[in-house]
Amino acid sequence: MVSPAELYEPICYSLSQGGKRLRPLFVLIACDLFNGKIEDAIFPALAVELFHNFTLVHDDIIDRASFRRNHPTVFKKWNSSIAILSGDVMLVKAYQLLTTFAHSYSHSTIQPFNNFPLGKGKGQAVFSAFNQMAVKVCEGQQWDLNYEQTNKISIPQYFKMIELKTAALFAASMKIGALIGGGSERNANLMYEFGKNTGIAFQLQDDLLDVYGEEKKFGKKKGGDILVNKKTFLLLKTMELIQSDSSLKKELACYLKFIPKNEKEENRKVNAVKSIYDEANVRKITEDAINSAHKKATVALKNVSVSSKKKKSLLDFTTELLHREV
Amino acid sequence: MVSPAELYEPICYSLSQGGKRLRPLFVLIACDLFNGKIEDAIFPALAVELFHNFTLVHDDIIDRASFRRNHPTVFKKWNSSIAILSGDVMLVKAYQLLTTFAHSYSHSTIQPFNNFPLGKGKGQAVFSAFNQMAVKVCEGQQWDLNYEQTNKISIPQYFKMIELKTAALFAASMKIGALIGGGSERNANLMYEFGKNTGIAFQLQDDLLDVYGEEKKFGKKKGGDILVNKKTFLLLKTMELIQSDSSLKKELACYLKFIPKNEKEENRKVNAVKSIYDEANVRKITEDAINSAHKKATVALKNVSVSSKKKKSLLDFTTELLHREV
Repeated sequence: MVSPAELYEPICYSLSQGGKRLRPLFVLIACDLFNGKIEDAIFPALAVELFHNFTLVHDDIIDRASFRRNHPTVFKKWNSSIAILSGDVMLVKAYQLLTTFAHSYSHSTIQPFNNFPLGKGKGQAVFSAFNQMAVKVCEGQQWDLNYEQTNKISIPQYFKMIELKTAALFAASMKIGALIGGGSERNANLMYEFGKNTGIAFQLQDDLLDVYGEEKKFGKKKGGDILVNKKTFLLLKTMELIQSDSSLKKELACYLKFIPKNEKEENRKVNAVKSIYDEANVRKITEDAINSAHKKATVALKNVSVSSKKKKSLLDFTTELLHREV
Repeated sequence: MVSPAELYEPICYSLSQGGKRLRPLFVLIACDLFNGKIEDAIFPALAVELFHNFTLVHDDIIDRASFRRNHPTVFKKWNSSIAILSGDVMLVKAYQLLTTFAHSYSHSTIQPFNNFPLGKGKGQAVFSAFNQMAVKVCEGQQWDLNYEQTNKISIPQYFKMIELKTAALFAASMKIGALIGGGSERNANLMYEFGKNTGIAFQLQDDLLDVYGEEKKFGKKKGGDILVNKKTFLLLKTMELIQSDSSLKKELACYLKFIPKNEKEENRKVNAVKSIYDEANVRKITEDAINSAHKKATVALKNVSVSSKKKKSLLDFTTELLHREV
């Protein structure tokens, strides 16, 4: 173990909690889609996973979250200072992996692709995509924080927020993989669109699973979003739908103000809000929104100029992902 | 102003508080020392300043510091969540500046220097130096945190800590400037040594000024380190020196346990500890340690193979810096 242990143990801990490793997988699959050598994409794939875990470690401090993937968060197991610093190191290490990639790329056998207008070689394009994504993810988390302070959030504002916070990393992973694989600018941007809309669908699914998923599989406390009045698609959409129903509106407003003091009260709040969601038929509406985003993703992928056969397995994968229960 | 304002206002606020801008200056001076075009070093110079400010924003959360450069810290003026996120964006933006540099360099008129063993071009070498520095600075801050929990820290442990936390950034700034200016590997590493020892001297000076500096010029509360029992060189050296003086030892131990409840008690603690420092003659000893580190820096600079005339103005600058009162 590298020292100081207080800095590196939380990093190992965070990375060993598992998770689905979707983002690095996207980098590798997107690279392969363009017949790139996936070995060339290993370091950027590791970089996006490390970046993702960095955001989780910092977000858990901000959200004061106790559990993540069925384990205590770094913030809870150690403390916020250690979570800040080990998160910082994870971000730096992600850039170190990208630097290694840029170097190894400059020595690889693959020719720099010339149809990318930046014309700066892939290292440059990959770094730029990563930088832009990283800024977006932080902006998204800040919007999320801002929205905690108000109930007046529109559905378009919600979509803007998840596009930054969640979808930007899905999108960048696909784009980075495509760039490394040798995709043209047009194809790389289509892969970005594919990833972005898949990410939007994924986040909507996440909102849905908090209420309708199985706790054990999901790895988070069920109804956790409800308990902290999180501005999920389900809550915002329900608010919109029950505008003219003054009694339901009053009931929901009442439960939003209600702060449970024990587990029994927590269950009461979760069940009450869930039954308002049921009343508003918001489960179906959320599923429709997921399908709509998934459709947009599919269209983008269809326009990518590689063989349909190669695209099919990627599409099958994301389709299965969006019907996940975990 | 870019949105969300809650993310970008703290960044502007932090960067507009001033400070001495030493680190970017080092990058530019080191570049100029090797007759490089300082325009080539602008982006990396901005990157190191942004990185430095990122560390301050995060450190102030960790240290729960209320003031920095005579102004409320970001953590205090906003809150810890905003300080975490805006700090994160500052780190990403530092990398964005480096990426811009690496790109513009690849299009600049300067020839890649071939006597650098990495042979990867300057962009690669600059990124690597920056990454290594960034990891060191985080490690140094973690050691600093660890040392808060114990009184048993040796002087070598103290030096190791400040070498990481403070001196690594001074060193990397000098090295990065030298690399961009076209210095050989040997010269770039000597500039690293020069920067490192200057940084060590600078941190010792900082410890000294907390006790013996002028509050208004220094911009921090005088005796602030004493109030939080910070493991400065003065405290650790005094502990070492009074080992055999049981009455002084007892008095110091007593004041380390004493937690002042108001300003009067704060002044009492600061004055009492200061008089123990005076008793141990630790001011003179610290000044000697500063001079010794400065001497090492001077030797490294002497060995850099550029004209003495050019080196003299750099040495005059750091000499003046180490006799600063602010």
